Amino acid sequence: MARTDVPYGMIDDAAIVLADGRIEWVGPRSALPDEFSTGAKTSLAGRLVTPGLIDCHTHIVHGGDRAVEFEMRLNGASYEEVARAGGGIVSTVTATRAASEGELLTMALRRVDVLIGEGVTAIEIKSGYGLDRETELRMLRVARAVGKDRDITVRTSFLAAHATPAEYKGREDAYIDEICIPTLRAAHAEGLVDAVDGFCEGIAFSPDQIARVFDVAKTLGLPVKLHAEQLSDLGGAKLAASYGALSADHLEYLDEDGVKAMADAGTVAVILPGAFYTLRETQAPPIAAFRKHGVRMALATDINPGSSPLNSLLLTVNMGCTLLRMTPEEALRGITCNAAHALGLTDQGIIESGKRADLAVWDVKHPAELAYRIGYNPLHKRIVGAPE
Amino acid sequence: MARTDVPYGMIDDAAIVLADGRIEWVGPRSALPDEFSTGAKTSLAGRLVTPGLIDCHTHIVHGGDRAVEFEMRLNGASYEEVARAGGGIVSTVTATRAASEGELLTMALRRVDVLIGEGVTAIEIKSGYGLDRETELRMLRVARAVGKDRDITVRTSFLAAHATPAEYKGREDAYIDEICIPTLRAAHAEGLVDAVDGFCEGIAFSPDQIARVFDVAKTLGLPVKLHAEQLSDLGGAKLAASYGALSADHLEYLDEDGVKAMADAGTVAVILPGAFYTLRETQAPPIAAFRKHGVRMALATDINPGSSPLNSLLLTVNMGCTLLRMTPEEALRGITCNAAHALGLTDQGIIESGKRADLAVWDVKHPAELAYRIGYNPLHKRIVGAPE
Ligand SMILES: [Zn+2]
Ligand SMILES: [Zn+2]
Repeated sequence: MARTDVPYGMIDDAAIVLADGRIEWVGPRSALPDEFSTGAKTSLAGRLVTPGLIDCHTHIVHGGDRAVEFEMRLNGASYEEVARAGGGIVSTVTATRAASEGELLTMALRRVDVLIGEGVTAIEIKSGYGLDRETELRMLRVARAVGKDRDITVRTSFLAAHATPAEYKGREDAYIDEICIPTLRAAHAEGLVDAVDGFCEGIAFSPDQIARVFDVAKTLGLPVKLHAEQLSDLGGAKLAASYGALSADHLEYLDEDGVKAMADAGTVAVILPGAFYTLRETQAPPIAAFRKHGVRMALATDINPGSSPLNSLLLTVNMGCTLLRMTPEEALRGITCNAAHALGLTDQGIIESGKRADLAVWDVKHPAELAYRIGYNPLHKRIVGAPE
Repeated sequence: MARTDVPYGMIDDAAIVLADGRIEWVGPRSALPDEFSTGAKTSLAGRLVTPGLIDCHTHIVHGGDRAVEFEMRLNGASYEEVARAGGGIVSTVTATRAASEGELLTMALRRVDVLIGEGVTAIEIKSGYGLDRETELRMLRVARAVGKDRDITVRTSFLAAHATPAEYKGREDAYIDEICIPTLRAAHAEGLVDAVDGFCEGIAFSPDQIARVFDVAKTLGLPVKLHAEQLSDLGGAKLAASYGALSADHLEYLDEDGVKAMADAGTVAVILPGAFYTLRETQAPPIAAFRKHGVRMALATDINPGSSPLNSLLLTVNMGCTLLRMTPEEALRGITCNAAHALGLTDQGIIESGKRADLAVWDVKHPAELAYRIGYNPLHKRIVGAPE
């Protein structure tokens, strides 16, 4: 998927030379340089090879589940009744605070292993269900542990600005100053933070509050990203772009001005069809405007226990195509090269000489099959190149 | 899931006694009769046990796929362009006619194995991509072979009245008389038919044409079912009900009159959210009316290469809840006891003394988890009781 001048950047009857966990050469088999003619060869029997898949937006570390709340809603309970029964994000925060590092890790690995089974070689993992210093740090340590326990690249995002915990309800500014920012400094000092994230929304934090967190990120030399324009347009994506954000995510209610700001800043649009589907949203993100202005689009699971209990990146691709009318090629770039961009990963997401040898081998004839099938996983083999 | 007086018919801390592939006893462990105290015991460590799942509407035997057509549409091609490129059902008919029995079986088993991995113990399989005598018979033989090659109950439906093949275009009546009905007789004589199905729709067959096929089914003593009211209301469900149909399937455009007719006839409503999702349908089947009139609701994948390339019954359940607002309990009854009714299976789909020991054991605490998660398979073990 290196070139953009042919569909998918496909090379027919290709050869890939791997050495020391890196891609040494890739091209048509007929053009394989003589120097590589020795060495062990593996035939993939005409199978499709793609970059290892990248899930660039997950909340995969969390305690509890929200199945009972899911059922209550379908049985006709109102939001108030669900809240009174302890539902909503509060229940996930409570369960996450109550869980030990080991428990959180066990639960996360179960979900991560499903993604690995789909050829995923890199994931982003956010904090944001602790909302206190201790638990936010614990979530990020668990995220790091996922990367040690499994052959997968993990990038962490610090997301204490996800929601206001009960003990700070109505005192959002105090929460930002007393918990969010000091915890960010502590997490960074411990080497736990690869990027800083936030949730800019009426039900979460205002652009001003997010800007205060981003200012600290800047002084720490950390890149930012933002949950923006999911339910309304507060100018979050524009704000993120003004900080040179890696990505702005969700974006259903983004206007063309915001799209242009993202294009100018090189900010990736991370589309999250699992939340769109689960919330039965009817307004799609502005895909046509992203195309028009050349904004890179990525796709991610957003796996979380509330608005997107979606544990499949392949299914995410189908939803991106079926529900949001992305093309299969856009969708596949969205879980490879563009997802790498959204995480600031410069040596993954593409099959090119010098990049990591993170590959997925598929039992399909045409790449569109990866987008077309629903609930079917044609992975033949996952190859991970670890450059130790 | 036997009782209806408690949610899901659940029994806490239950024991199940199996013997000779049958359920001998089920109830609270504390009430286990002394006579069963000897014999091997297996602890399931508090896991949830459900009936083996039943997928009561599939087109799982077919040649080819339609990934390229899926991509063409998303790349902006019109229906005419797709048709000129050989797309649509014609391409599946061509690929199915060209495939040998062995090839069709290999492809079908790949899909069946994914369902088996989700705890499915019974499936329905339709013909309907041959549309000529030879290929319709071949599809049904392959369906029977699936049941021999795998530990799964297979019920076949004869569906030559699915579409008109190119060679009969515009001569639907002749196709019914010259191909459909004689092939039905031949298939029945070979023991290949468990039920007779049709597609009643403007783009397929009229109620009169379907009635002619159903009349033959009646003389052969075969039960009927029908694809009805998927795109418009032709009174198909009512027609099917007048023949005492096992099920009417799709039903997005069914009116309350049709619902009542189904209730009176005991015809099961088979809901197919995969097609609803893939076609981006906005009119949901009349779930509230089914509830009001006591029509049993089943859920199925409808796995087919065109309108529902959906290979997961668990995902079907999530779609039934998320998109069509069925409750998790309705959805789970829809892939167990009510799916059994839709197939006329009297000894499956329920955990009850005397029934087949077809069970699924799940790594979940609450049955709603099976509906809530998306793209995650918590199956611990599948148990199949074969009464030879
Ligand atoms: Zn998120
Ligand atoms: Zn069908």
